[in-house]
Amino acid sequence: EYTDVVMENFTCPKHVGEIEDANGVGQVGSPACGDIMKIFLKINDNGIIENASFKTFGCGAAVASSSMATDMIIGKSIEEAGKLKNSDVVDALGGLPDVKIHCSVLAAEAIQAAIQDYKNKK
Amino acid sequence: EYTDVVMENFTCPKHVGEIEDANGVGQVGSPACGDIMKIFLKINDNGIIENASFKTFGCGAAVASSSMATDMIIGKSIEEAGKLKNSDVVDALGGLPDVKIHCSVLAAEAIQAAIQDYKNKK
Ligand code: FES
Repeated sequence: EYTDVVMENFTCPKHVGEIEDANGVGQVGSPACGDIMKIFLKINDNGIIENASFKTFGCGAAVASSSMATDMIIGKSIEEAGKLKNSDVVDALGGLPDVKIHCSVLAAEAIQAAIQDYKNKK
Repeated sequence: EYTDVVMENFTCPKHVGEIEDANGVGQVGSPACGDIMKIFLKINDNGIIENASFKTFGCGAAVASSSMATDMIIGKSIEEAGKLKNSDVVDALGGLPDVKIHCSVLAAEAIQAAIQDYKNKK
């Protein structure tokens, strides 16, 4: 029921862990399942996301979504990354079962929170 | 917020994967989060569980619970294993956050389903 792209990003997730010198960190929790997603961003002086990573205790769909989402925003400006929608991530994954959409929302929301954290600190 | 035992069983889970010659297989799904848990048992002629394993797309708490639960039933009779309660698994993990109890239920339920599957086939 999961696409090959989902399984690939679940079994070999990219960008897992913390970024030591992150200057934008966002954390959100899911009311649906209680899981937590944390996103770390390293943004340079030109507002470009040089590196992004995630940490979660969430399910396979959450892992796959955040692997894909962080991969999609690296190299982009915070303006572009700020426009990333949950549906963009799900599309890139080739779809997710309906019951797992709430997991993919975590990644997109945590990215917005991390960008906001960066702006607040400036 | 997670105990060391939970983190240990999450980061280095035991008994992950399928058992090729399993003679009892159980699968359950969680209405709360949509996750699926599958348990494989290899039961010998004396009714002793020689090997147990699990596969899931579930969250860290589901992984930790099933790692612990499979570990607890290996070497036991199906009668003893059939008595394993969700609360036994949570106790062995040193507790779980309230919102994550539903994840640990998956492991205990899938074990019951796998034992039933074995009995049905006999
Ligand atoms: S079920 Fe919690 S993140 Fe997927």
